[in-house]
Amino acid sequence: MARIVQKFGGTSVADVNRIKAVAARVKREVDAGHQVIVVVSAMAGTTNQLVSWVNETSKLHDAREYDSIVASGEQITAGLTALALQELGVPARSWLGWQIPIRTDDSHGKARIESIDLSEIRARAETGEVAVVAGFQGVADGERITTLGRGGSDTSAVALAAAFEAERCDIFTDVEGVYTTDPRLVSRARKLDKITYEEMLEMASQGAKVLQTRSVEMAMNHRVRVQVLSSFVDAPGTLVVDEEEIVEQQVVSGIAYSRDEAKITLAGVTDRPGVAAAIFGPLADANINVDMIVQIVSRDGTTTDMTFTVPKADAAKAVKVLENARPVLSFHELIADTKVAKISVIGVGMRSHVGVAQKMFQTLAERQINIQVISTSEIKVAVLIAEEYLELALRALHTAYGLDTA
Amino acid sequence: MARIVQKFGGTSVADVNRIKAVAARVKREVDAGHQVIVVVSAMAGTTNQLVSWVNETSKLHDAREYDSIVASGEQITAGLTALALQELGVPARSWLGWQIPIRTDDSHGKARIESIDLSEIRARAETGEVAVVAGFQGVADGERITTLGRGGSDTSAVALAAAFEAERCDIFTDVEGVYTTDPRLVSRARKLDKITYEEMLEMASQGAKVLQTRSVEMAMNHRVRVQVLSSFVDAPGTLVVDEEEIVEQQVVSGIAYSRDEAKITLAGVTDRPGVAAAIFGPLADANINVDMIVQIVSRDGTTTDMTFTVPKADAAKAVKVLENARPVLSFHELIADTKVAKISVIGVGMRSHVGVAQKMFQTLAERQINIQVISTSEIKVAVLIAEEYLELALRALHTAYGLDTA
Repeated sequence: MARIVQKFGGTSVADVNRIKAVAARVKREVDAGHQVIVVVSAMAGTTNQLVSWVNETSKLHDAREYDSIVASGEQITAGLTALALQELGVPARSWLGWQIPIRTDDSHGKARIESIDLSEIRARAETGEVAVVAGFQGVADGERITTLGRGGSDTSAVALAAAFEAERCDIFTDVEGVYTTDPRLVSRARKLDKITYEEMLEMASQGAKVLQTRSVEMAMNHRVRVQVLSSFVDAPGTLVVDEEEIVEQQVVSGIAYSRDEAKITLAGVTDRPGVAAAIFGPLADANINVDMIVQIVSRDGTTTDMTFTVPKADAAKAVKVLENARPVLSFHELIADTKVAKISVIGVGMRSHVGVAQKMFQTLAERQINIQVISTSEIKVAVLIAEEYLELALRALHTAYGLDTA
Repeated sequence: MARIVQKFGGTSVADVNRIKAVAARVKREVDAGHQVIVVVSAMAGTTNQLVSWVNETSKLHDAREYDSIVASGEQITAGLTALALQELGVPARSWLGWQIPIRTDDSHGKARIESIDLSEIRARAETGEVAVVAGFQGVADGERITTLGRGGSDTSAVALAAAFEAERCDIFTDVEGVYTTDPRLVSRARKLDKITYEEMLEMASQGAKVLQTRSVEMAMNHRVRVQVLSSFVDAPGTLVVDEEEIVEQQVVSGIAYSRDEAKITLAGVTDRPGVAAAIFGPLADANINVDMIVQIVSRDGTTTDMTFTVPKADAAKAVKVLENARPVLSFHELIADTKVAKISVIGVGMRSHVGVAQKMFQTLAERQINIQVISTSEIKVAVLIAEEYLELALRALHTAYGLDTA
């Protein structure tokens, strides 16, 4: 007997037939003698419909009402999935965030889970009853419904798995697992059998959309073994686990990319102490997240060029903020470029291997691809390049790091 | 300052634009200085969609899951209506059944309200905040969501009006009020300015679908002044009130009809004490509701013909139950007829006027319309006729009782 959490995303519960298939998948674990908690998203498309109604009704909406409205999507699938399980003879009941309860803070729209009371679900699991939990939602003080942000059902699942002390948290999605890179762009991309939490965290935050970043953080903190797998194909997926569990560690495990950044260059900024604070302070005040930063000091030593990236959606706002600060910053020129892409090479093996960054620079240089910005972490090297070279660069790096399928 | 409850049905909140119109309608009462509780149904069509998903998933579904699923429809409109009010500068928040709470028994799918805790809503109403309550739903012991049955939002509204000690409970719908009879069948039907609770109760239970029967009972018991009016036309509707409030009382106020009954005749049943119990006992056991009953004793005094009506949807089941009981009942023949209609003439004035039934019989006789079954109450005469004569009979009776528009 094991305890297992199984989470099914929107495409996996898109209609009644798929919900029945989900129930059949869950029944296999129940028949094998396991205790199961199921977490479901809203039917594909439902959340978007609800959000668009909210936006049509009120542009600057009350986030508490937004949460109550959009949480209804998961309420529907939780009930239907419980019914589908009952129909197969599996005892089951649905649980909404407030019924468990899953207590969160009151940051509506992006709430953080504070505690989960699993006593009732645990007791019922002992009798063989499957709990079908509405993902993405919790309840704050004052008994108001909260939601955990886009992809929040992953976080619900991992948090429940931690509280349930589950042996495994299966995240069922429409891809077969985590790939060395995006198989839509690189045909020779390979599904990984295992990946470490740290790598998955970098992959998620660098643009691989297979898991919500916060769910990976939570899995890492609570050492929850996560498996990403397809609900349409009956095959093992990718296990996200502790580094020690991975015997044959690759130097580079995967290559992520993102088209969601824009590059901004301030040319000819007077170089004096505090110039970085003067630039990035106003951007932080405007709630704009700055990612990569590079500073080049000019030959005469009195001016500097500052280049950095911001989310593409915030590029226009960032330009406006900086133009307003021009009297203080006294730069010569402001150049915004949205036709850029970021490529990140990720692997815990980098800690013990040198030359990973060098291989990246050399591979790109051989293809005449110019690197605009570089940023590194302990297990990642990221570069910014012109967007038009993205696919070429991905394929070349994928081969260079020995990731291609045999 | 008055306290008012306003309930908006599914067609009144069918899309975002209509929800905005609802908010504007509510704002008028707020601007007039009134304290308002709004009750909303699900968007037209939503409940049917949810119910059909439930039925596709599981024919014999768990009513607790059904309730949790279908209650989401009102959750969505409550949130959107609160947002639309806020957008107009009116402080508002949505309330779900469990948040108030509206406590019900655990008869899922047709729960009865047991208590409403209005303390928080009352306190907020004092500050000018409008409560937008999701209709149709409550919460039972064990914190499971319940629903009050089809049309249950009317009951939610009246129950809230009673608890709020509201001066008026406005039920906004897609008709302009309560009519002397169905204007789709009788063009000279007239909107009533006022109708008594007792008459409304008979109208509702005799097939006029403008208000849920239970909501009228509740209004009568708590003396809640109910107004039925259109959310699309800006005009007074029909007030449902105490008899004393109606100065010029008509003998007959309205004529209701129903096509939802079937007639069953058992011919040649042995006439002995206990025969009625032998027939209706098995039907009651099968949960089949018998409405009109007539018994004719044969000339020889040893056999009897028993005719009665059951809901059309239960006709086949009733025939089966009676065939099974044939050895005990020993009837000659069983005849089921689903092509019948019931017409009910209703008015509290009947209590003090004679000849109301006689006028009905005479009017129908003049049109050669055969009366198959008769049933009467203190304020109602109902007859069963062949369905094909329904419209003819309705028009003739409407004229005979002086109900036609001038």
